[in-house]
Order: sequence, then structure tokens, then C-alpha cells
Amino acid sequence: MSVAVILYHQTMTRWEPDARGRLALAAMELYVERGFEQATVADIAERAGLTERTFFRHFTDKREVLFSGQDQFLDLFVSAVRSAPEDATPMEAVAAALAAAAADFEPRRAWSQERGRIIAGNAGLQERELIKLAHLSTAVASALRERGIGEPTASLAAQSGIAVFHVGFAEWIDPANTRSFAQIIAEGLAALRVVTSSA
Amino acid sequence: MSVAVILYHQTMTRWEPDARGRLALAAMELYVERGFEQATVADIAERAGLTERTFFRHFTDKREVLFSGQDQFLDLFVSAVRSAPEDATPMEAVAAALAAAAADFEPRRAWSQERGRIIAGNAGLQERELIKLAHLSTAVASALRERGIGEPTASLAAQSGIAVFHVGFAEWIDPANTRSFAQIIAEGLAALRVVTSSA
Repeated sequence: MSVAVILYHQTMTRWEPDARGRLALAAMELYVERGFEQATVADIAERAGLTERTFFRHFTDKREVLFSGQDQFLDLFVSAVRSAPEDATPMEAVAAALAAAAADFEPRRAWSQERGRIIAGNAGLQERELIKLAHLSTAVASALRERGIGEPTASLAAQSGIAVFHVGFAEWIDPANTRSFAQIIAEGLAALRVVTSSA
Repeated sequence: MSVAVILYHQTMTRWEPDARGRLALAAMELYVERGFEQATVADIAERAGLTERTFFRHFTDKREVLFSGQDQFLDLFVSAVRSAPEDATPMEAVAAALAAAAADFEPRRAWSQERGRIIAGNAGLQERELIKLAHLSTAVASALRERGIGEPTASLAAQSGIAVFHVGFAEWIDPANTRSFAQIIAEGLAALRVVTSSA
């Protein structure tokens, strides 16, 4: 490690040890305690022992604390579709992306549950979540078309795959659940197959 | 027809012949000519030869001209799921709803195309459309659960059925399309079956 990097780390540790992480934690605590609407950026900064200015260096607004990871999530999903074996069927490529997403989420179940409760309590956040899922679906359909898959197959594979993710996510964060997200996704894909075969 | 009803109709014809229809037509024309953002309620009322006050008697806001039929559409969809034969599979019940929706839309292709173009040109309208589809999906899942279908089957049948509707709608309003909406829906259900069976 270079001296410059060591000094940078020391400085960050002394003055702002993971400011982003502290702000996110403080925000989540306050969203749970007071409700999303009632918690202000001033409250969040105060709880984290930082300034509002620091908050806005890390997040555009209060909502972004809950949605900031989603661009990386979309990238992860799309990369997995792109790097699926050349001879994979559209749904196999989507299944590979779902498996990658499940593995990525698995260690963050407690955070996902807390986030889920906050979102469930606010109609605007629920709408934003639905829109993010729709964008994810559009991106996956586009990645499938890049693999030479035509329409309506690309969009149907993407949308029904995202349906498996969406429905499975709710099952996974349910307090009564003991299965892994990967297992729930695999069962969801099997259930989708059964459901669609009987019409 | 009673005298009262005849008098009512004559009054309506003389003073306000289908004010709602005239306002909707004027609004659609202006949304196409100027873009949704630029058209004001004052412009719409003027074009229809009516007052702004009359506009607000019929529509909450500018957006509602484009979305006002959707509550009836949701009712139609949910009723069809409810009235499907008792021994219908979840996807057969959803397919019956899709067929009812397709029949309802068929005579309104030109209007649907114009509406589709207006919505495609405005991110906020696109988001609203996605949210309406998500609500439709939630309502269908709920109607399936009322029929005794468990989770995740109810939600997967609803969400993948709505995916067939969503993808099929875009195909149906495509200017190059010559097929009926019913035919596209039937083909979409078959394509979904093929897509999901290969993962």
C-alpha cells in the first residue's frame, strides 16, 4: 500500500469513518422509528454525527438511501444475462441472472427486511420500487435481444423472470421463511413453469 | 322513455352534448400537437368550446383524460377471473380475463395508438402506466386467492398474465400489426409457455 493511500485511509478513519454507511444506518433507524415521511435529512445527519452537507455529498435525497444500490443490482443482473453460455435458452439466461441476484442478496436479509417494511409503509416508495423493477425488466429484455432473441420472447422471458424475483423476494424476507433466496428462486421458476403450462 | 328522461337528453344535447367526450377528444388532439406537458387545461377547454370548470367536473387533472378508463378495465379483468369456471386452472382464469380485455380494447385501436404515442413521450406518464399495470396484477392475484389459489402461484399467474397483456398491447398497437388483440394474446400465452418450459 502506498504512503498516499495509507494517509488517505488514516484521514478518512479519523475524520469520516464510513460516513456513507453511518448516514445510511442512521436513516434506516429513523425511517423505522418515525416513519419515512417524518424523518428529515437534518435528523439523519444529527443521528450520524455528521452535517447535512455531508449527507448530500453521499445521497441525492432521503429516498436514495433506500434505492442507491439498485444501479449496481441492475448491472449485476444484465451482466449475468450477457455472460450466460451461448447456447443457453432465454429463460436459462434469466435464471442465471436470478441466481446471481439471490447470491448477492443472501447476506443482506436483515437489511432487506427492514427496507421492505419501510417501503411497505409508504405508497410513493412502493411506486418507486415497482418502477425500478420495470426498468430492470426492460434492461433484461434488451440484453436478451442483444443475444439474438426476438420479441415477444425476450420481453416475456424478462417480465416473467422479474415476476419470479419479485414474488420470491417477498417470500424470502418473510420472518417465517427459513429457505435461502436461491432455493426460493429455483422453486419459483418451477412454479412458473407449472402455472403457465396449464392454460 | 319517460318525459323526464327525454327532457334530460334534450337539455344535455342543447347545452352540453357529451362534454366529457368533447373534452377528451380536444385533450388528445392537443397532447399530440403540443406534447402533454405543453397543453394546458385552459387550451383543452377552449378547443372543446367549454369552460375549465366543466373540464374539472369531468376530470381531476390533465393526466386523468388518459387514465380514466382504467378503473373499469380493472373491474372487467377481476370480474372475468371471478366468473371463470370453478375447475379452471389459475392460468385459465387469467386467460379468460385477457380475452375479455382484448375484446374490450379491439374497437379502440386508433385511440389506443394515439394514447400510446402520448405516453411514450413522457416519463411521468410511462411510470403511471407501469404503476396501473402493477395494481392490476395485485388485484388479479387477490381474485385468484379468493378462488383458493395459494402463493406463489396466484401472484406468478397474475404477473406473468399481465406480462402477456403488456407485451401484447405493444404488438397490437404497432402500426405494422394486422392481427386482432385476441389472437396476439393467445399467441403470447403460447410463447410464455414455451419460454418458461426451457429453464
